[in-house]
Amino acid sequence: MTQKKKYHISFDPVGKSTDVLPGASLLESAWMAGISIASVCGGNGTCGQCRVIINHGDTSPPKPEEKKLLTEEELEKGYRLACCTYPQSDLKVHILEKSMVTGVRLQLESRLTDMTVDPMIRAYNVKVDQATLEDPRADMNRIMDAFSNSHGLHDVKADVAVVRQLSSLLRKFGWQTTACLRSGEIIGFLPLGSHPVGLAVDIGTTKIAAYLLDLITGEELASSGAVNPQTMHGEDIMSRLYYTIQNAKSAEPAPELSTLICEKLDELLAELIGKAGLSHSQVADICVAGNTAMTHLLLDLPVQQLASSPYVASTNSAMDVMVRDLGIQASPGSYVHVLPGIGGFVGADHVAMILATDIDRKQGVTIGVDIGTNTEIVISKNNGADLVSVASPSGPAFEGAHVADGMRAAEGAIESVKLTESGVDYTTIGDAPAIGLCGSGIIDAVSELYLWDLIDARGRFRKTHSRVKRGSHGSEFQLAADPGRSTGNSIVVTQRDIDEIQLAKGAIRAGIDVLLNVTDTPPEAVAEVIIAGAFGSFINLINTINIGMIPYFPNAKYRQVGNAAGVGAKMALISR
Amino acid sequence: MTQKKKYHISFDPVGKSTDVLPGASLLESAWMAGISIASVCGGNGTCGQCRVIINHGDTSPPKPEEKKLLTEEELEKGYRLACCTYPQSDLKVHILEKSMVTGVRLQLESRLTDMTVDPMIRAYNVKVDQATLEDPRADMNRIMDAFSNSHGLHDVKADVAVVRQLSSLLRKFGWQTTACLRSGEIIGFLPLGSHPVGLAVDIGTTKIAAYLLDLITGEELASSGAVNPQTMHGEDIMSRLYYTIQNAKSAEPAPELSTLICEKLDELLAELIGKAGLSHSQVADICVAGNTAMTHLLLDLPVQQLASSPYVASTNSAMDVMVRDLGIQASPGSYVHVLPGIGGFVGADHVAMILATDIDRKQGVTIGVDIGTNTEIVISKNNGADLVSVASPSGPAFEGAHVADGMRAAEGAIESVKLTESGVDYTTIGDAPAIGLCGSGIIDAVSELYLWDLIDARGRFRKTHSRVKRGSHGSEFQLAADPGRSTGNSIVVTQRDIDEIQLAKGAIRAGIDVLLNVTDTPPEAVAEVIIAGAFGSFINLINTINIGMIPYFPNAKYRQVGNAAGVGAKMALISR
Repeated sequence: MTQKKKYHISFDPVGKSTDVLPGASLLESAWMAGISIASVCGGNGTCGQCRVIINHGDTSPPKPEEKKLLTEEELEKGYRLACCTYPQSDLKVHILEKSMVTGVRLQLESRLTDMTVDPMIRAYNVKVDQATLEDPRADMNRIMDAFSNSHGLHDVKADVAVVRQLSSLLRKFGWQTTACLRSGEIIGFLPLGSHPVGLAVDIGTTKIAAYLLDLITGEELASSGAVNPQTMHGEDIMSRLYYTIQNAKSAEPAPELSTLICEKLDELLAELIGKAGLSHSQVADICVAGNTAMTHLLLDLPVQQLASSPYVASTNSAMDVMVRDLGIQASPGSYVHVLPGIGGFVGADHVAMILATDIDRKQGVTIGVDIGTNTEIVISKNNGADLVSVASPSGPAFEGAHVADGMRAAEGAIESVKLTESGVDYTTIGDAPAIGLCGSGIIDAVSELYLWDLIDARGRFRKTHSRVKRGSHGSEFQLAADPGRSTGNSIVVTQRDIDEIQLAKGAIRAGIDVLLNVTDTPPEAVAEVIIAGAFGSFINLINTINIGMIPYFPNAKYRQVGNAAGVGAKMALISR
Repeated sequence: MTQKKKYHISFDPVGKSTDVLPGASLLESAWMAGISIASVCGGNGTCGQCRVIINHGDTSPPKPEEKKLLTEEELEKGYRLACCTYPQSDLKVHILEKSMVTGVRLQLESRLTDMTVDPMIRAYNVKVDQATLEDPRADMNRIMDAFSNSHGLHDVKADVAVVRQLSSLLRKFGWQTTACLRSGEIIGFLPLGSHPVGLAVDIGTTKIAAYLLDLITGEELASSGAVNPQTMHGEDIMSRLYYTIQNAKSAEPAPELSTLICEKLDELLAELIGKAGLSHSQVADICVAGNTAMTHLLLDLPVQQLASSPYVASTNSAMDVMVRDLGIQASPGSYVHVLPGIGGFVGADHVAMILATDIDRKQGVTIGVDIGTNTEIVISKNNGADLVSVASPSGPAFEGAHVADGMRAAEGAIESVKLTESGVDYTTIGDAPAIGLCGSGIIDAVSELYLWDLIDARGRFRKTHSRVKRGSHGSEFQLAADPGRSTGNSIVVTQRDIDEIQLAKGAIRAGIDVLLNVTDTPPEAVAEVIIAGAFGSFINLINTINIGMIPYFPNAKYRQVGNAAGVGAKMALISR
């Protein structure tokens, strides 16, 4: 048997490379090399996000999809869509900045309302007598007796994986240990005096935020964020559900989306305990918030019935799943606790948001909007006695997808825009040379275009400005010449971009209007509007009202609270 | 890369063959071919049980171990020890009958004392409304609501593997199902009206007995038995513990003993549900009894501390382990319930025996003896208020090991022996031509030799009989010429055999004497003696007393009750 020939693919400017078998697309090759290339459509050649330039080597010829999304000039320059391109030799590939998903800024700052640390996990110091011929009690029974005698806890149990570790640990620790208990079940054994820690995770459709907390002090030890790796197979919920259903039917199914997310959680946890200088065995609890689709895809629950009318979840209850069942390394007896959801697509992250913002205890009428690829909205009336929620598929436009020069909120993204008499003022993330537009920048741009009367109320360009030009896809506004881009092209806002933003903001606005309607709430009655979500805390509120995404309520205070779902997950972790 | 050469090994008289890589011993090859060759010493070349004849092909030269255990004449005829012999070409191998472990007779007859069927598992019929846009409750929440409304059971839970199946099953079954519950946890969903079934298993050091029971009626649906596959790595407990410890340290560890036994349980369960015409999903509970070493090796608990003084178990508590964690196919949420033990090597099988025989409720002083490779003994006084147990490593001699012409209780084994004026009367299992001696036959033989004064009280041959000859290992008694054996040799009882039986019966007797001593019980006080164990029910009671294995108690009734541990496991299965 001869080994199958592999191609060596090197990517710049990241300086990573990988060897791939014939048949792998460049998009897949990049993911194998650990490079996150954006893909909105799940590799179907329809979103045009995964642009690369082939600098050296042979590839498959351009597909019809590429001819549709790339100009002839671009194709001549070597531009390709990574998802449609298959290596036919060793390759040198340049990834366009805006196609990359690196150094994404995540909203990790978050506030924990004052709360008592009272976690599900309790640590107990246990000392036992050494086993002798006169007292040859089994190790576990010795521990159980000690719990009974010293702590008044009878019949504590332990999973078989925990018992498997006990005998050697008890001898190693000198017949004393700190045992972590969760509702009468021993989660693991630590050296005497160790603190158990817990992981709180908010799994967003696009982004994941993870926090490591000390379960005795409640202190946050480390935090990190990552792009949800499922993004590779579609940026919105529905395309991921369809992908999962199709993949399951395939003769050679790819790794499941649940595997991708579980591996990522394991990776994030390893990163966090590395940062904090701890060990896996100290991780005694994991709390996860996510929308219904995300929790289904995490737990590998079936999604067929969720993807079509009447859109029924497998479960909306809280779930406790042992870490080993999800392939996550932590204390052997620990659980992943998935927070409960409400119904349909209104999931655990929404519950976490309500928990974190106290919306359910507000005196006046309060509206909570958790903006993301999937936007959840809640209205609370009568001190939280009436609580109605809705989920709105606002899509990934605010993540820069479906937007010509859109990109994620990474370094070099234009995050705020102001038109002036003389031109355009903008700021970028990290003050780096501009390479694209992230969500807050797009909202600003659209709002400014409207304020300056360059577009009409329906969003059509009026074509009366020197910067409004005819581009390859209709009218476009030249926002910035681009010193930071290797292509030399300007950063523009196209007619299609404005349409995309209208769709996205329209979905959110429709959700709010529906809630006001079904709860019979006049605008004057609304006392508070809470905007949550990593993205939601960066946007210019006035501009969201200006473009009609969020209504103007004359008597309301508006608040931006950051990643409320993440805070909710933390609260669930440190307080039962 | 070229494929490594494999040798084709065919075995007669079983007619099986296998392909093995160089480096595998014939013993391993036979096990790979699914042939159970006896190995007492765990493949160390010391027990001489695994004799084969090489009929064709090249092998490694005889090892010193083989030269010690085989005569020169035997070596010339092609006799080898399978554990010491390594193929060096394709081979044809003949397995001697007494080396084979096939068609072993198991004591499966067992009595269930009259008891109410009241299992841990309860079946509930649940009917729910079909999901609609107006009522899009999650499937699991719909089930939970139905339990709450129709059965008054609130907050029922389910493992993630159960929830994963729910959505498709609910639709397949037309929104109605029989749900099996175990302490508030749903084990699985069945078509409406199905009966859940359970598996009761007694894992003996040498033999496994398995029973399939209907969990609604309590009826026994099927039963089966098998040799414990761990026997390959040593017939007694200690050699298996040592093997496990050594194997764990090995650079390339072999499959663990836990894997071997779990695979065998899975196989037995598949056989039983096949016999009963059921499906794996109906199996809602599994109850296991076994001695401490067997339960440790089943659950892959550490044995280092159990193998040396002070002989401490990891746990003696009952354990509930999900079937998937042991690789057993059953209802997705079902557990393997391992019955609790007492301490040291007195394990769950002993508890099961006590349970089954009601020893703990006897009015008079009662002694229970569960004879096996490991023999457990209990004494009950004061209506069970005083219950003292001891475990005695009686060894596998009663299974035919360490006995020159010993064999397991399989077809052709001499099971009873009577000396007469004219010679020897014997019976064999299945009335087949005699090929060896099983435990009851050996006890009979030794007892008869003593009664006929051919051996003295210390077990030494007196050499005054025409049948007592000088053999290759000292004096031996010619029990039977052997029409059933391919070697043509007689079946004999050697001086060494008698020594082995003395050791084994001495261990049991010592255990009983220790119990009488520590509980200060005079022989006259003993009212009942219960002999349990598959082997124990076949032996001639009078002869066990005659050779001093069981004491003579002047006021006692003696009872043989069969596989009490198996009955205990069944009782635990159908009555919590």
